Amino acid sequence: MLRPLTICLALVSFYERCAGLYALRERLEERLTELGKIGRLEGGGVSRPALGEAEIAARRYVGQLMMDAGLSVAVDDAGNMIGTRKGRLESPYVTTGSHIDTVLNGGIFDGALGVVGAIEAVKMMQDEGTVTELPLAVINFADEEGAYNSLGGSKFFAGSLSARDLYQSKSRHDGSIYGDKVGAALAGDRIARFTEPIKAHLELHIEQGPIMEKEGKDIGIVTGIVAMNWVGISLTGVQSHAGTTPMSLRHDPVLVGARIVSEVREIVKSYGEMVGTVGSFKVSPNVSNVIARQVDLNVDVRSLSMPDLTAAIDRIQKRAKELADQEGVGFRSDIASIAESTPCAKEVVDAITEATERLGYSCMYMPSRAGHDTESMARVAKVGMVFVPSRGGVSHAPEEFTDFEQAHRGVEVLKRSMLSLASGS
Amino acid sequence: MLRPLTICLALVSFYERCAGLYALRERLEERLTELGKIGRLEGGGVSRPALGEAEIAARRYVGQLMMDAGLSVAVDDAGNMIGTRKGRLESPYVTTGSHIDTVLNGGIFDGALGVVGAIEAVKMMQDEGTVTELPLAVINFADEEGAYNSLGGSKFFAGSLSARDLYQSKSRHDGSIYGDKVGAALAGDRIARFTEPIKAHLELHIEQGPIMEKEGKDIGIVTGIVAMNWVGISLTGVQSHAGTTPMSLRHDPVLVGARIVSEVREIVKSYGEMVGTVGSFKVSPNVSNVIARQVDLNVDVRSLSMPDLTAAIDRIQKRAKELADQEGVGFRSDIASIAESTPCAKEVVDAITEATERLGYSCMYMPSRAGHDTESMARVAKVGMVFVPSRGGVSHAPEEFTDFEQAHRGVEVLKRSMLSLASGS
Repeated sequence: MLRPLTICLALVSFYERCAGLYALRERLEERLTELGKIGRLEGGGVSRPALGEAEIAARRYVGQLMMDAGLSVAVDDAGNMIGTRKGRLESPYVTTGSHIDTVLNGGIFDGALGVVGAIEAVKMMQDEGTVTELPLAVINFADEEGAYNSLGGSKFFAGSLSARDLYQSKSRHDGSIYGDKVGAALAGDRIARFTEPIKAHLELHIEQGPIMEKEGKDIGIVTGIVAMNWVGISLTGVQSHAGTTPMSLRHDPVLVGARIVSEVREIVKSYGEMVGTVGSFKVSPNVSNVIARQVDLNVDVRSLSMPDLTAAIDRIQKRAKELADQEGVGFRSDIASIAESTPCAKEVVDAITEATERLGYSCMYMPSRAGHDTESMARVAKVGMVFVPSRGGVSHAPEEFTDFEQAHRGVEVLKRSMLSLASGS
Repeated sequence: MLRPLTICLALVSFYERCAGLYALRERLEERLTELGKIGRLEGGGVSRPALGEAEIAARRYVGQLMMDAGLSVAVDDAGNMIGTRKGRLESPYVTTGSHIDTVLNGGIFDGALGVVGAIEAVKMMQDEGTVTELPLAVINFADEEGAYNSLGGSKFFAGSLSARDLYQSKSRHDGSIYGDKVGAALAGDRIARFTEPIKAHLELHIEQGPIMEKEGKDIGIVTGIVAMNWVGISLTGVQSHAGTTPMSLRHDPVLVGARIVSEVREIVKSYGEMVGTVGSFKVSPNVSNVIARQVDLNVDVRSLSMPDLTAAIDRIQKRAKELADQEGVGFRSDIASIAESTPCAKEVVDAITEATERLGYSCMYMPSRAGHDTESMARVAKVGMVFVPSRGGVSHAPEEFTDFEQAHRGVEVLKRSMLSLASGS
């Protein structure tokens, strides 16, 4: 039987823990909200493309947060911000991070949670006086959303994109050159490139999909990042009058394009976990009473299995060509972009699993079907990702939202996973 | 046995006829080419939207041609130019005409042939000293291509569009108001509206389709103008991430739109002569890695049979709604525009047939699947149309072309048909 004093102490401790957690959740909310004001559009979402004015302002805010958490901040040639924290040993590092650039009219969580949340995790360690065996680093990667290069900063960090190629690349928003704009991002201590060995890299991110919400889970433990191909298809028909051209003499690229869209759905469905989308379908001249001359469409296909992806892309291209040939419509197809699949490391997945279980949060294993900086980091470290739920699965939009309680659970899991991975050997 | 003199005279007569025809063909070519220079774009086609600068300049040229052919020219409130020629009787009239406005970047034949050719037919009568029993009129209808109103001038002429509605209508090119712009078109003798009874109305026009060329025929005798419906369909899905949204949780309006396009083809084919087209298919936001939020497409369906057309439209709407419901995509549909079918009058078709046979030209009966001013004129007269072949079936494009020899055969058939219809009864 418990003595009254023990019960009382336990209650006080529980209260303090709740109040402490509440304060931490509040601080996370405040900081994400504050960051979300930088680049906010009137009545809309946030626009902070890499190296733009708003993104530069956001960097200053993040630099302050890093320093407040006791991190030593350096900036590399690409503009990646690296906040380091000493361990008992000098290396290897355990790193974590994400990005603070956004798509045009995006939300306040995508990327930002993984930077602000990582700083919060380290801040908690500092406040608790925790010293880890291995040193830590929090990284704010430049240009994840690809104003110049998709995952540009993390690719440079991991050595798969040269400074030369990066500096010559052009903004798809305003045509500016990376090398001309990066200067403003290079404020503070400079390093050419971070060259310390890295044991493990973690990224906290919103799911950007509806699955966790549907399953009612707190934490998504990512098993790998899907491979992705884009197939650009151009169909050239014969423009003619919608009234005077008999059905039998038509070469209609809209009909062929429509049949390809239906076929993509059927082919993709036959692989189970694969997803495939035609989100871009452009018709020329796009006039109601004119049989179109040209359709340009793009097929986005993603799969955890590279062989499945390759096979599906091949089937889509062959079938699309057949459908074009049937109607006498010209066919051209290019594979426009490829990302290989990235498996997460068992050691990192285990560390996240254990942290989640210790904290008593519900979790599920899932692939990431969006690209992340962690993809790049897999070249130089064992990687893992922690997902938190996205309300309605919405992302890349002003309505993007994650409950701050849920977001903070993600921070706790991140912190505990880092501590476990940084505990040495 | 023929005597040498007879043979000689016959040869001379044959030569003269050939030379005369050659000269007439040349004049038609010259005049169409000259008119085609007005509003010509650098390296492209002709842009003469109604009441624009180029169309006003073209009206001056056509007015000169009318006067040169002995016609008395008057302009009505809509800007229709009416060139009249006395007959032995005062009425009813036999009328013919078409339009000189064009689509943006169109060709030099659509409409223009029916105006210049009609003037040529009357000019030939004048040169031959022919006087008809009934009076004739050549009409240049305003705004056939619908810068403000499709068939606007002829609808006003036939009393199905009021001056008030016409004058308030807005240009879809520059937003200008008809009433503000029509002044420049009202130069010369004015009448409010042409109110004389009309026995028959004829229109010479290019086919704008590939059928006559394919069949190798000189003259197309139009049996009727098809009925036409436009069905506007709006599909509202849920915009989301192309990677993170599982196939089973998607509400993709592009997929639904694509299935509708395929279905339209199947439904239309089941009616034989019907044609159906989706030429306009607009995706929002139309980004490769985003499942679209919205698709707006338009279905253009034409048939000689109004009951078939109504039944097909009904099937398309029902099926489209089913396809949207299957994917949980919002569906809205409007019938945006309707033209009833217009049968040509037996008396006029017979006159054209006889004229064609007398001239020894090959011919075929066919529907018109494009709209024409003759549709409007069917309210006030027995109507008929003469088609000449379009090279490759191309129209509403800079490549629009009809061999001038073929075009002139159309003028001859028009002239002979008018003479026969104007011979009194």
